Amino acid sequence: MNTSTGSLSLLTDLYQFTMAYGYWKQGKADQQAVFHLFFRSNPFKGGYVIAAGLEPVLDFLRSFRFTTDDVAFVGTIAGNDGQPLFEQAFLEYLGKLELTLDIDAIPEGTVVFPHEPLLRVRGSILQCQLLETALLNLINFQSLIATKAARIVMAAQGDPVLEFGLRRAQGIDGALAASRAAFIGGCAATSNVLAGKQFGIPVKGTHTHSWVMSFETELDAFSAYADAMPNNCVFLVDTYDTLEGVRHAIIVGRRLLESGHRMVGIRLDSGDLAWLSIEARKLLDDAGFHDAAIVASNDLDERLIASLKQQGAAISVWGVGTKLVTAYDQPALGGVYKLGAIQDVDGAWRPKIKLSEQLIKTSTPGIQQVRRYLDGNGRAIADMIYNELQPLSETCVIIDPIDPAHRREMPASVTFEDLLRPMMRGGRLLAELPTITEIRSKTLEQLQQFHVSILRFDHPHKYPVGLEQQLHELKSRLVLEARSDVKSGATP
Amino acid sequence: MNTSTGSLSLLTDLYQFTMAYGYWKQGKADQQAVFHLFFRSNPFKGGYVIAAGLEPVLDFLRSFRFTTDDVAFVGTIAGNDGQPLFEQAFLEYLGKLELTLDIDAIPEGTVVFPHEPLLRVRGSILQCQLLETALLNLINFQSLIATKAARIVMAAQGDPVLEFGLRRAQGIDGALAASRAAFIGGCAATSNVLAGKQFGIPVKGTHTHSWVMSFETELDAFSAYADAMPNNCVFLVDTYDTLEGVRHAIIVGRRLLESGHRMVGIRLDSGDLAWLSIEARKLLDDAGFHDAAIVASNDLDERLIASLKQQGAAISVWGVGTKLVTAYDQPALGGVYKLGAIQDVDGAWRPKIKLSEQLIKTSTPGIQQVRRYLDGNGRAIADMIYNELQPLSETCVIIDPIDPAHRREMPASVTFEDLLRPMMRGGRLLAELPTITEIRSKTLEQLQQFHVSILRFDHPHKYPVGLEQQLHELKSRLVLEARSDVKSGATP
Repeated sequence: MNTSTGSLSLLTDLYQFTMAYGYWKQGKADQQAVFHLFFRSNPFKGGYVIAAGLEPVLDFLRSFRFTTDDVAFVGTIAGNDGQPLFEQAFLEYLGKLELTLDIDAIPEGTVVFPHEPLLRVRGSILQCQLLETALLNLINFQSLIATKAARIVMAAQGDPVLEFGLRRAQGIDGALAASRAAFIGGCAATSNVLAGKQFGIPVKGTHTHSWVMSFETELDAFSAYADAMPNNCVFLVDTYDTLEGVRHAIIVGRRLLESGHRMVGIRLDSGDLAWLSIEARKLLDDAGFHDAAIVASNDLDERLIASLKQQGAAISVWGVGTKLVTAYDQPALGGVYKLGAIQDVDGAWRPKIKLSEQLIKTSTPGIQQVRRYLDGNGRAIADMIYNELQPLSETCVIIDPIDPAHRREMPASVTFEDLLRPMMRGGRLLAELPTITEIRSKTLEQLQQFHVSILRFDHPHKYPVGLEQQLHELKSRLVLEARSDVKSGATP
Repeated sequence: MNTSTGSLSLLTDLYQFTMAYGYWKQGKADQQAVFHLFFRSNPFKGGYVIAAGLEPVLDFLRSFRFTTDDVAFVGTIAGNDGQPLFEQAFLEYLGKLELTLDIDAIPEGTVVFPHEPLLRVRGSILQCQLLETALLNLINFQSLIATKAARIVMAAQGDPVLEFGLRRAQGIDGALAASRAAFIGGCAATSNVLAGKQFGIPVKGTHTHSWVMSFETELDAFSAYADAMPNNCVFLVDTYDTLEGVRHAIIVGRRLLESGHRMVGIRLDSGDLAWLSIEARKLLDDAGFHDAAIVASNDLDERLIASLKQQGAAISVWGVGTKLVTAYDQPALGGVYKLGAIQDVDGAWRPKIKLSEQLIKTSTPGIQQVRRYLDGNGRAIADMIYNELQPLSETCVIIDPIDPAHRREMPASVTFEDLLRPMMRGGRLLAELPTITEIRSKTLEQLQQFHVSILRFDHPHKYPVGLEQQLHELKSRLVLEARSDVKSGATP
């Protein structure tokens, strides 16, 4: 429904414009600032997140421009007094605005953890602020779905997982973006043809109950389908009676064999999937169809798949829809976008924090980078968030942001990589982006870097992520200063 | 991210194409069929749903056409054998396809119940089938969000509810479609500027914590904001210390008064909203700011708002984001699309059902219409689903679809209206559609037609919806026939 609009540059909260106007009025529009986009806790009671959504973010930034239409609309927005909120000169400023920001980001498909900046945005405070909402929308949702997909793929233990979510997704782009993110998280294919076209994801599908109902008999329906698709028959067998359906599939499967073709398999979409799949497998095996796949669908998620695996279900392909594309058990990742530092008129950077009664909600100051330490086998051992404004010593000390008694030393000899990579400078894209298939491979490789105890569904082992000691001390000092300012009646 | 594609006609599951191909191969592409789109249970443990998404559906249908690009892509889709799934002549058929369907629908903003068809699609079985997935996507999501919004608005007891969900929504259209549906459900405004532009919804917003952080002091930040927006100041007061923030707002509010302006209010975004709002109200009242609004946000939903109301919270405007736009506690409506009848070669309509082990999942046959009976005060008393293929008698008997012992008679004297209205004939739009503001008013009027016990959040009174007696009997007969066919080894 939003495809006819062209420009997406108004995809933002109104308060980004009211603030932009405020900065512009104050002559502060070009004050340099750094913002970080991060989340505070892992979704699904899990131990990690798969970063996703960066390419759509960069596409959005590359085409960012207020059209004449956009500016005209902003000009019509009225305040509580019924008068336009914005003056003409500001609207002209918007019309001429070009993004000149520096963007650093953790590449898509990377395993990431709470408090780590997935995106660092640096430049004019007005520009940084205008983009906040769209960046959050794109990164929050795709990272959420890529993570859900990775969990489901892990539960399937190597069986292909197909994403079937379009009909229950949250809008058109809720479906398209979910198909993309699900593939990044490890799904093998989607049912969504438009996602296949847009992103180059393999598309898969069989037939519906209504196909069967539209024929006199189920056998007629399967035969007609086999006539049309002799090499691609996965018969949906549960329109009337599932095991009877399997028998009909076998009859048509035999006819296919006689004419030199091969039945691909059957699909179960209701009932007791554990029992039915085992019974269906017996029927298929007894008839010699040992390589016929059993595809199962019906409100599956990682927990149900794990349970079916445990019960010995004879399912070889998993179709997952609603629970994946809406991230049903936690349909939002709480990503936020916080100011880390601002440049004074004298050119010096001033780190900034936001207080909160909850420690976890107090933001981290500075211009942040994430360093991942790896052991001799390439396995990740700890992540350190550090402030590029504070030169690092040879041996770094990492301090848990919630429990400062948790510390560990990282000698200079330990291998590491810095996760935030330069993506844009002055509004220009720096690097060629990986294909979606490369991103998907990266996810699978990345997950290998972490111990399985960190990846498990429930009560995962907590992967160590901490603040570098100087950053920890800076944050503690700023918190104390702000608190004492408040107490003494001064304003921070 | 999907805005550059133009055509949305591939927004469908692959199996709709494989079946379309099957129908076409069988020479059955133009066989006439009727499908109904309905859901089986109310979301959020509630008692109703607000129908939404029809206008986007009709927009989608009006622009439905496979472009050269679309057809070329479909031609590249390969099967399990690596060969293209579809033959050239079928691709040419798709390229020339024009929709000629008849669409009847329950207007947006109507209160609806399980098993009632929100949409009835009649025409070529191939066309009916190709559209299934997109229709479900659009209706499922918008009806879900309109319903959630109606619940939240009810909890707010007349206070304005603002939709702030863009940053946590499920993709771009997950946000835009949610803003539209939230307004239909009764929200007063959105923060999403693009939704404002596209749909004509009022847009609202204040400022962020980072605005405050970017100044030396909170007082400086509020003053600067007041300079820019003297008539539209809602100050976010919780960046450092909430009540201190209220005091700063009052200082700036006084300066505004002196210069002939008026502070609109303050916003609370964290902490104990009940206690803080009461304390903030005292401070504002003591300073003479009796009409300053207190806007609250922070993970609100209908239950939290009801609880805050009960605690006497002094909140006058509610900003609701994540929990509304993702329908957090139930992020999908389980709408389905089932074949109701098919026309034989002799022109006779043959009603169809799909069996299921669960009675609730057995589909209803026929060409359905929904009749709503109203008492003398215009209050809805019962809905009847009937089959247009079966002429009604003067007095109708309504039978509960799950418990056939529940019956009620409707004498001919009772007022009624039929809810499904003609929207398209032969692919052409019939009527001018209501504006979004008219739809929103309809929702509010519709809710007045139902007793509050049906609208309450938990354990609502069940509104009576049943099958007309002849339809009930037809369904029962078809179920028995299909079951006995299965048992006797014949195929239904």
